[in-house]
Amino acid sequence: MTPLPPAATIGILGGGQLGRMMSMAASRLGYHVHIFTPEEDAPASEVSLATTLADYRDEDALARFAASVDVVTLEFENIPVESLCFLERHVPVMPGANLMEVTQHRANEKSFVQAQGIATAPFRAVHSLPELVHALAELGTPAILKTSRLGYDGKGQFLLRSPEQAAEAWEALGGVECVLEGFVDFTAELSVIVARSVAGEVAVFPLTRNEHRHHILHISAVPAGVPDSVAQEAERIARTLAEAGDLVGLLAVELFLCRDGSLKVNELAPRPHNSGHWTMDACATSQFQQAIRAVTGLPLGPTHLTSPARMLNLIGDDVHQAHALLAAEPTARLHLYGKAEARPGRKMGHINYLLPSGPA
Amino acid sequence: MTPLPPAATIGILGGGQLGRMMSMAASRLGYHVHIFTPEEDAPASEVSLATTLADYRDEDALARFAASVDVVTLEFENIPVESLCFLERHVPVMPGANLMEVTQHRANEKSFVQAQGIATAPFRAVHSLPELVHALAELGTPAILKTSRLGYDGKGQFLLRSPEQAAEAWEALGGVECVLEGFVDFTAELSVIVARSVAGEVAVFPLTRNEHRHHILHISAVPAGVPDSVAQEAERIARTLAEAGDLVGLLAVELFLCRDGSLKVNELAPRPHNSGHWTMDACATSQFQQAIRAVTGLPLGPTHLTSPARMLNLIGDDVHQAHALLAAEPTARLHLYGKAEARPGRKMGHINYLLPSGPA
Repeated sequence: MTPLPPAATIGILGGGQLGRMMSMAASRLGYHVHIFTPEEDAPASEVSLATTLADYRDEDALARFAASVDVVTLEFENIPVESLCFLERHVPVMPGANLMEVTQHRANEKSFVQAQGIATAPFRAVHSLPELVHALAELGTPAILKTSRLGYDGKGQFLLRSPEQAAEAWEALGGVECVLEGFVDFTAELSVIVARSVAGEVAVFPLTRNEHRHHILHISAVPAGVPDSVAQEAERIARTLAEAGDLVGLLAVELFLCRDGSLKVNELAPRPHNSGHWTMDACATSQFQQAIRAVTGLPLGPTHLTSPARMLNLIGDDVHQAHALLAAEPTARLHLYGKAEARPGRKMGHINYLLPSGPA
Repeated sequence: MTPLPPAATIGILGGGQLGRMMSMAASRLGYHVHIFTPEEDAPASEVSLATTLADYRDEDALARFAASVDVVTLEFENIPVESLCFLERHVPVMPGANLMEVTQHRANEKSFVQAQGIATAPFRAVHSLPELVHALAELGTPAILKTSRLGYDGKGQFLLRSPEQAAEAWEALGGVECVLEGFVDFTAELSVIVARSVAGEVAVFPLTRNEHRHHILHISAVPAGVPDSVAQEAERIARTLAEAGDLVGLLAVELFLCRDGSLKVNELAPRPHNSGHWTMDACATSQFQQAIRAVTGLPLGPTHLTSPARMLNLIGDDVHQAHALLAAEPTARLHLYGKAEARPGRKMGHINYLLPSGPA
């Protein structure tokens, strides 16, 4: 495929900070950007040439959007599949509706992963309280009940410490289709991001170690400080899933490192990922530029680490410390998302710290 | 000064590629950007929240612009000084009208430099053909006649190889106020960019070696490959001029390296400069981020080289090679400006090549 020419227009579904950083990466490569979002004052709109402000199911708006762009990609995985299929009839959409259908549904996603011979947490799809009781008997406790759709940052989850909590958990999540996940005895949370281009080229970013706070990513660190064999296995998993899913774009793979050294896939996200933000300052190519390269037909960029790094998320009121943190440490690279209001739990920005090289 | 809070608005006068890259740097720090430009479809507007499309002398538009921003900076040095003074009555403008008045006028600029005890090419201000004839007799040929105002990229210049060309040169430049510059026997063209913040903090970027083609910058290289003493003298010159000019923002200083190892100042530009584009990929802080830090009250960032680098400008039709050049070399970092039409001599983008470290 000939790459999209300079000044072509990239459509991005979703207007959050991931879309903002994708848009800036696209602009850096000379592309114009058109954001589709239902959200007023979206962070991505502030840095983009055009915005369509409409519901994801508004077919008139989708048709106008499709007519104004050369390719569509996304920063948000919960775009209705029907909308993606509608767009696909008018313009290339990457990643495509097939992969999105898998990753929008926890049970489908885990089945897809297992079908590639890759481990996940043990799980049961749950459609009723009796099914939940049955699943708890099979998987034991502790276990986590998660809605099949639309969960993120710990939302739509309930930790069950005993089978007696079944009714409470089922009630709390609203009686919708769920997945019960069995306990995984992990020693670290890791993630790996893989890019696959229109031409089928694959590039994997270095493995990252993540720490969460209140179910929200707090810190990511590279190198991950795990044995090479673990990093190699993570890369193999990422490549396998990218190929099997016929990915064009980015796929973030969240992994548990188990006590026995094995890896289990936790979640997939077919888009740039918070745990890859360090790539903006410490990698030969940022995840955002890679996402744009993948869908425009450009060659993928090299993904080697240029410096050990540590990413700190700025959540809610943390943003008020941003300037002090920047002043305190010359290696700090500050990224803020232009959000005026620092609501609790809201991702306001991040800082990448470059660390001295040395033994991991 | 307390730094401007996140989501404050930065006004930028000028809508070209320098404004585009400043705008993206500001967005990365969470600021909103409002561009003031007389140019439709300006590259900077494509990546900015707001644009005022108006003549620089339109005081109604300037007043509305001033009311909508927290600070004004610029990417283009030839903003009418009256407009800057008008804005300064409503909002902080950095760099201020005083420094702009100096750098907009070649004779004033050279006198300012010499007043700091720093050498320039020998020159004479010229207001008439008889004055030009007299100046040629004093400075000899070859010599270059340049309009005092509004020249860039070789425009508004005439090279005189003999005194007989006086009338032709005077005619060619339209009979306006000019400066005649005497011959400088230089061995290299260098440049250095200095930042000075609201708080008076100063940071100097590494010295850069430049090659021009058809009067337009073609290649910049760092390190510049000159003795340390030359680099130190360039830094001293930059600091001296920044302090003397009461700079807040960036000042680019173009220098001639003479055969005897001495430096002469060629031109000043109180803004980001094409010869600093390599800082986007090979410096701890990019010149664009530094420009934003300087005017928002943030601490200046570190300016050390992170890799030897070579910047290649993409002029006019060069842009059609951009994707092939990117594919050919993994260390290439491509930047395009979103311009649809590749007119001859038009700056369409640049590529930063990261070079292996080694002896300079």
